[in-house]
Amino acid sequence: MNYPSKVLERAVEEISHLPGIGKRTALRLVLHMLNRPVSQTENLANALNHLVQDIQYCEKCHTISDAHICQICANPLRDSSVICVVEDVRDVMAIENTGQFKGVYHVLGGRISPMDGIGPGQLQIESLLKRIENESVGELIFALSSTMEGDTTAFYLYKVLKDFNVNFSTIARGIGVGDELEYADEATLVRSIQNRIPYVESTLKG
Amino acid sequence: MNYPSKVLERAVEEISHLPGIGKRTALRLVLHMLNRPVSQTENLANALNHLVQDIQYCEKCHTISDAHICQICANPLRDSSVICVVEDVRDVMAIENTGQFKGVYHVLGGRISPMDGIGPGQLQIESLLKRIENESVGELIFALSSTMEGDTTAFYLYKVLKDFNVNFSTIARGIGVGDELEYADEATLVRSIQNRIPYVESTLKG
Repeated sequence: MNYPSKVLERAVEEISHLPGIGKRTALRLVLHMLNRPVSQTENLANALNHLVQDIQYCEKCHTISDAHICQICANPLRDSSVICVVEDVRDVMAIENTGQFKGVYHVLGGRISPMDGIGPGQLQIESLLKRIENESVGELIFALSSTMEGDTTAFYLYKVLKDFNVNFSTIARGIGVGDELEYADEATLVRSIQNRIPYVESTLKG
Repeated sequence: MNYPSKVLERAVEEISHLPGIGKRTALRLVLHMLNRPVSQTENLANALNHLVQDIQYCEKCHTISDAHICQICANPLRDSSVICVVEDVRDVMAIENTGQFKGVYHVLGGRISPMDGIGPGQLQIESLLKRIENESVGELIFALSSTMEGDTTAFYLYKVLKDFNVNFSTIARGIGVGDELEYADEATLVRSIQNRIPYVESTLKG
């Protein structure tokens, strides 16, 4: 595309580096910015600068935080003996939104994926090991993606940590609440039958 | 959603003000920014600041430009007696990309749309009037959206300008090149029949 202005082109170029945003969408966004008050776009630019300059990660669980220790790790009411291992901060937010989990987290920062060149060394596994060594951890819950990479990551962690006196669990896989059986994929259906639970227990939990 | 960090929340908030980007997508973009080199996001922020601070509009045709007069208006090889009236800079770019139009443009900056509170006063109509008064304009091509608002805008312009010694034309509406007739909508099909052109002329142009 030929842009009538270098300033315009550069803005489109930078925006289109973001995932899922092509040149056309970027141009649409840029024109929107030109049609709204200048201050709004300045606020956006400021927020992005602040983001990359001021963001911190919790020293304990590695979630995004405004302090050295995140609000969850710093909360004495949370049960620090139960650690939920997740891939990224979105998973923490999703679980926190349910309001039902009272333990703490450990954010790996991704999952083992040889295809993407991500090995165990790039994930926060060393620090998880240290937490289990130094804190009195009773249970480790794997809340990882139900994909090859997620399963590989869980298996790797289990192998590394299995000699510690810790119970390992993984979140249940099965038919989603409200989902119809006939639309479930085969693998999920198989898992939901294999991992069936006593009826009475299930209804009490629901 | 509960965000674990104010810095994160503010960035998500600002990004989600953009059209077509919800909170979830904004969060995905923000996490992407945190996983790439800081300089890339700083470049983006800089580009946005430059955009809103340094952008200029051509004094003649009102397209986005890096100078007072845009490259097209300043080009002596362009035929300034033929003005193509468009809604915004994307239309200019689309037509320029064809490389077939040798005239100049006039960017209205939108279309008359009472529903969105946009009247003729908010569009660059006054300056189009001045161009026709002062320059020797032979033809005015309406290249506006084929919508109620686009048609209204063309009709309004025609009413305002019809006493000048200028030929008015509008871009052809019809079945797109490569499109199948059976999938065309009714209105387009009707227009394509009503505005049929002699066969020989059409094949020569093609």
